[in-house]
Amino acid sequence: MAADIAEQPDVYADLLEPASVQAISQVAAAIAERKPQHVVFTARGTSDHAALYGSYLTEIRLNLAAGLASPSAITVFGARPDLSHALVVGVSQSGGSPDLTEVLKVARKSGALTLAVTNNPGSTLAQTAELSLDVAAGHERAVAATKTYTAELLTLLLLVEGIRAGGKVPATKLKSLPALASEALSHGGAEEHAARYRFAARLVTTGRGYAYPTAREAALKLMETSYLPALAFSGADLLHGPLAMTDPDVPVLAIVGAGPGGRSMQAVLDRLREQRADVVTVGPEGTLRVPKVDERLSPLLDILALQQLALALALARGEDPDAPRGLNKVTATM
Amino acid sequence: MAADIAEQPDVYADLLEPASVQAISQVAAAIAERKPQHVVFTARGTSDHAALYGSYLTEIRLNLAAGLASPSAITVFGARPDLSHALVVGVSQSGGSPDLTEVLKVARKSGALTLAVTNNPGSTLAQTAELSLDVAAGHERAVAATKTYTAELLTLLLLVEGIRAGGKVPATKLKSLPALASEALSHGGAEEHAARYRFAARLVTTGRGYAYPTAREAALKLMETSYLPALAFSGADLLHGPLAMTDPDVPVLAIVGAGPGGRSMQAVLDRLREQRADVVTVGPEGTLRVPKVDERLSPLLDILALQQLALALALARGEDPDAPRGLNKVTATM
Repeated sequence: MAADIAEQPDVYADLLEPASVQAISQVAAAIAERKPQHVVFTARGTSDHAALYGSYLTEIRLNLAAGLASPSAITVFGARPDLSHALVVGVSQSGGSPDLTEVLKVARKSGALTLAVTNNPGSTLAQTAELSLDVAAGHERAVAATKTYTAELLTLLLLVEGIRAGGKVPATKLKSLPALASEALSHGGAEEHAARYRFAARLVTTGRGYAYPTAREAALKLMETSYLPALAFSGADLLHGPLAMTDPDVPVLAIVGAGPGGRSMQAVLDRLREQRADVVTVGPEGTLRVPKVDERLSPLLDILALQQLALALALARGEDPDAPRGLNKVTATM
Repeated sequence: MAADIAEQPDVYADLLEPASVQAISQVAAAIAERKPQHVVFTARGTSDHAALYGSYLTEIRLNLAAGLASPSAITVFGARPDLSHALVVGVSQSGGSPDLTEVLKVARKSGALTLAVTNNPGSTLAQTAELSLDVAAGHERAVAATKTYTAELLTLLLLVEGIRAGGKVPATKLKSLPALASEALSHGGAEEHAARYRFAARLVTTGRGYAYPTAREAALKLMETSYLPALAFSGADLLHGPLAMTDPDVPVLAIVGAGPGGRSMQAVLDRLREQRADVVTVGPEGTLRVPKVDERLSPLLDILALQQLALALALARGEDPDAPRGLNKVTATM
């Protein structure tokens, strides 16, 4: 897991190479030409958080409605939604989950433009979709996904920016990303924070907008590697109920970016302070420091510090982060 | 909270009265006439779970793509999605949340057909939307929403079935619902289960398809009233990571209906048994017994047993379920 985490700056650099940018530009051009009226993402687990990021990007950068489909409506309950005006995007590290393949099949049959985003260009999912993108993260050794997650994030970002620009990915704007990722990984602090959480019985993660997928993914990593029950909430939803649960015994990890999402978290932080919650912030001004970038890019950096935290906590608790109990690398659900 | 819970059979009966069915039929007819290409729900907290149910109904019963919008994309990041082919539905008990009102405003401006589903027909949300439905649950005394949630569920079910039938709600098919709800409330078992969970440090809830909103809402009720960190997962997502967290110390509440969703949970239950998790099932064959109905209707009954469990657990823990720490009835988020 440590090796996978450390490779992420290189994964970013690879995705920003001309060959990869060219492949993404072609797909972006095909989508821009088809002018979908809305975008439906389908994914599971970690990839679902990448899809959530894709959905925020779609709404904010493309002004298109976006949503996450429930595969079970199609695979278990036999729904056959009319997706003829939609772009349907399946996101999967392995490309091997039968339910996502089934969703793309049904979508394509109903006339949707379909796209697979996977780390396995030869997978069933990639073969089922009309368009396909390889996130090219290389072999991931640990069961807990790290570099495939961030590779999915960057692929989706490049794709959306490419669609926005009419089919040409403006990759040069992102050329500093690999160096920023290295910087994020070198800030340290993971072991120190892990020591504080050594005996935590639960944890809450929170963020708004672009930072919400990060909160969700951080919670999943902590659960997968340290068996720490971690509850993720959008900052707004946290105020609608779960706040009752936060008290001085509940540690809160709040993702606070340098932009509108971070500013909108201030009210949430105020309420958490009133509740005397133990709040650790992640971001440019945070306790866990991450380089300052446009909030649209911060999911590509914030999660690095949180992956390091999950790894450090697993080790501090004497767990084996490379072999979580009861999990396999590819999960087949129908 | 106990009084609110007990009133739910009457709330169902009221919604099935001719006047209410007539109002819902009119809205269903207006929607059927406009033929939206997809449906976008927007909601917060408990109402978000009702919206999730609405989204499954839309996909399965209307064969329309459905998704839950992130209000922050619009309210915080200034997204202006083109929703001209969409039906946009705001679901809110109070109708007073400024962010949902803003989403409906933006949607209406972009040409969407907009609908407010609230327990307050005079609310800003209801006034902002082109169409509006009153869930007519009456005054809810407790902070934790119970009868307004199930009233939202039934309103959305009647609406979707009405749209499916071209504008006439087939309410007679549901005439046994109030009696079934009374039966669900009289089965008992809540105190006994609450006693077992007295010292639980966390809990996992899970369900698939129509049962997933129930799993989410049960987790929220347990958090709000008993401060028990409860993690909700769709059965499929549970296998993709969080399963690592389940062990004999983690109680699992699994919603298992009598239909395709329940059958698809069998593989999940098998895996949980392999992990030696402590599983309590909720449903017609469950440890917590609920009357047997079509799975589409089970969210209207299953949650009743789980609300009783949340209430009993709060009391067993010496908490005041009517006044959860740090929460108000109306939560204003932007």
